[in-house]
Amino acid sequence: MIKDPLEALSEYVRCPSVSADSTYADGLDAARSFAASQLTALGFDVEIVDTPKHPIILAERGGDPSWPCVLIYGHYDVQPADPFELWESPAFEPRIRNGRIFARGAADNKGPQIVHMTALGRVLEKHPDLPLRIKYLIEGEEEIGSPSFKGFLSKYKDRLDADMVLVSDTGSPSPEQLVITTGLRGLAGFEVKVKGPKSDLHSGVHGGSVMNPLQALMQICSSLHNPDGRVNVPGFYDDVLPVYQWEQEELSRLPTTLNEYKEFLGVPHFHCAEGYTPFEAIRFGPTLEFNGVGGGYQGEGKKTVIPSEAFAKISCRLVPNQRGKKIAELVMQTISERCPSSVSVEITDPEMGDPYLVVPPGRANTPEDMSPFFARAFERAELAIEGAFGTKPIYLREGGSIPIISDLKDVVGLDSLLIGLFTPEDNLHAPNESFHLGILEKAVGAFELFFKDLAGH
Amino acid sequence: MIKDPLEALSEYVRCPSVSADSTYADGLDAARSFAASQLTALGFDVEIVDTPKHPIILAERGGDPSWPCVLIYGHYDVQPADPFELWESPAFEPRIRNGRIFARGAADNKGPQIVHMTALGRVLEKHPDLPLRIKYLIEGEEEIGSPSFKGFLSKYKDRLDADMVLVSDTGSPSPEQLVITTGLRGLAGFEVKVKGPKSDLHSGVHGGSVMNPLQALMQICSSLHNPDGRVNVPGFYDDVLPVYQWEQEELSRLPTTLNEYKEFLGVPHFHCAEGYTPFEAIRFGPTLEFNGVGGGYQGEGKKTVIPSEAFAKISCRLVPNQRGKKIAELVMQTISERCPSSVSVEITDPEMGDPYLVVPPGRANTPEDMSPFFARAFERAELAIEGAFGTKPIYLREGGSIPIISDLKDVVGLDSLLIGLFTPEDNLHAPNESFHLGILEKAVGAFELFFKDLAGH
Repeated sequence: MIKDPLEALSEYVRCPSVSADSTYADGLDAARSFAASQLTALGFDVEIVDTPKHPIILAERGGDPSWPCVLIYGHYDVQPADPFELWESPAFEPRIRNGRIFARGAADNKGPQIVHMTALGRVLEKHPDLPLRIKYLIEGEEEIGSPSFKGFLSKYKDRLDADMVLVSDTGSPSPEQLVITTGLRGLAGFEVKVKGPKSDLHSGVHGGSVMNPLQALMQICSSLHNPDGRVNVPGFYDDVLPVYQWEQEELSRLPTTLNEYKEFLGVPHFHCAEGYTPFEAIRFGPTLEFNGVGGGYQGEGKKTVIPSEAFAKISCRLVPNQRGKKIAELVMQTISERCPSSVSVEITDPEMGDPYLVVPPGRANTPEDMSPFFARAFERAELAIEGAFGTKPIYLREGGSIPIISDLKDVVGLDSLLIGLFTPEDNLHAPNESFHLGILEKAVGAFELFFKDLAGH
Repeated sequence: MIKDPLEALSEYVRCPSVSADSTYADGLDAARSFAASQLTALGFDVEIVDTPKHPIILAERGGDPSWPCVLIYGHYDVQPADPFELWESPAFEPRIRNGRIFARGAADNKGPQIVHMTALGRVLEKHPDLPLRIKYLIEGEEEIGSPSFKGFLSKYKDRLDADMVLVSDTGSPSPEQLVITTGLRGLAGFEVKVKGPKSDLHSGVHGGSVMNPLQALMQICSSLHNPDGRVNVPGFYDDVLPVYQWEQEELSRLPTTLNEYKEFLGVPHFHCAEGYTPFEAIRFGPTLEFNGVGGGYQGEGKKTVIPSEAFAKISCRLVPNQRGKKIAELVMQTISERCPSSVSVEITDPEMGDPYLVVPPGRANTPEDMSPFFARAFERAELAIEGAFGTKPIYLREGGSIPIISDLKDVVGLDSLLIGLFTPEDNLHAPNESFHLGILEKAVGAFELFFKDLAGH
């Protein structure tokens, strides 16, 4: 009855569910249908909730209201796969190589979803009366900043009531060492367009009389960092919290060395904002990054043109207690102020999400009101992971963003247990994404134990 | 026997001869064949000279060695036509609208070539024994910096011996006011590539530890100008000559006002290097422009990636007595020096050409050794233009570059008479390029008179 997880994952990643690109509508439909059918097979009541963009899957395994309730989150959409020419095998045709399955979305987030579903299937097969209520929420807009999620939350928050959220959409340092993620960075992003002359100009005939929009854009953008690597936007760091002592101790348990990390990245030197080591910078530090810049002639050879406009896609990663809305406004205002008067600037497509932080049970800073069920979930997860992987998880913040985690905390009051199943070698958001088959297998075992334990079986 | 010029031009621009893009090889072949067939029809001996890239047309109308000899230069290649979506009619399908013919290459440089050929055809029809030797040189690499031209020159310089060069590949301010171009800017261009991590990275998982190649590129590029608009490269201005008094006087004859020019450009304010007015800046001032910049995600929506690399296509326009090679080396060295150690930089595809300046007869700075034939050519051109257009030409430097003009001076010792036939409204190097039909008609008449006069008829 329960599908082989590798077979299920292969089917899932064959659906090209790129949420950023409207030409992939069919792929999104296919991925959503596949995930919904898996939940139906597990005995869930499945509802497809329409949103302004890509529908959300909402599913429920009911039961006695006195049973504890877990809300499992995932996303069926994936990142764009270009540049396609850098993939060693086609992005949406799964291939097994070197103990990994290669495909866009294999790790982010389809593999981890298949882990949960397979483990649940096995537990429910053996324990059809498992005293655990489970809700499922699988969205299709995670990779574009979940624009419909807040609207959905405010409308459906009563249906989402639970004791905790379970998510596997974070990373671990290696297939042997899992991480329970205690924090996520927030996000503040937008697109900047600088407009100059009303038409592209010949750089010989007219060069010298106008501000080149590329020059203005680069001037603005390069003003956004100081030479010490810190973001040069007034107020940017005002709300950044110091890092807890227990976080530094957990960080020291990381098995990766700095040299290994540098080699993995393939850079001659690290480049971090002053005050952060590389491992700290990617977890505890905020950033401002240029995700895409373009303007003028992009083709082969030369074209001596002054372009009419130029763009930059910018996103900031935020840490507690920065707020997405405030930082987005600060940066957008700074950019507007720094735009030379010889061109105009337009900022569109703002996107924001707050960072998230949870302190596990037993730390100096653990909140006094942590629910016993949630505290127990941490302990059971630790045991299940140690059982399947041979080492205790490390409790660490991670650099990625899942803005809906802080939304769930704000709106429904739920904290999340984030168990990381992908590794740095998985090439998330890059060509040749893959998911480690050893993790797939061991994690199914760990989650089988975890779900059983959580129900008190 | 002589084709109607509009018909000939329509046929010529239908050949998509984009030299920068190797997918247009057929269009280049077609344009070259068309131009060669026109010259054959005029009675020229035509030779197609192979080069490492696109062949050169070399043609000759012989005669008594005592006859004067004019070398006419043109180029059969055109600029890329993208962005195609901004064209009101297809770029390579000529359309007549508002007294203009629209197509890529209509003005730069196919229209002016058809003017010369039509005028020559009419003169030779009436005067088959015209005592004037004519050589034709039409190349196919002008829009990519004429990389094969120097090699061609050193091999064929004896065949190119003549009394002067005639070129119509420069601009005039309006269809009523022609300009005889007395100077051209030189060019120093190249492509810069900044390389960071070996693969694109997730900006959440890894953001904070590495220098983003886009950030490094923009930091380098934005260091290349000072706030006063001048180029911030040590030594860049060392060899810039002051402007002659007669040039300022000619400039004051320009019929265009600054407001008209600003409106034409469609910018809120001009932006010129300190020390230059807009009309001076585009003729007498050197520039450094970004012709194309790109890196990271270029598609719809967002992709939170740190790209592995980023590029900038940069070109400088140079004025007398800057030298292309020296400036290219200065700028490339400056860029290398300013590259942060956390990324690497690669500079490729260098291209250079020297600026050109000729002082017409009768000025304080006219060289004493100017040949009587060349001095007479200036006077006859002035008369022919005044006859056809009703006003004397203005003698002005222009901002564009035809590096081969200074090469011809250096290698063959020939000065050029540059009669500008396109106008600012022609949208050179931009979408919706066109050529003015009134200029086409009047210029054919002017050149008919000019060729006849030049031969002393």
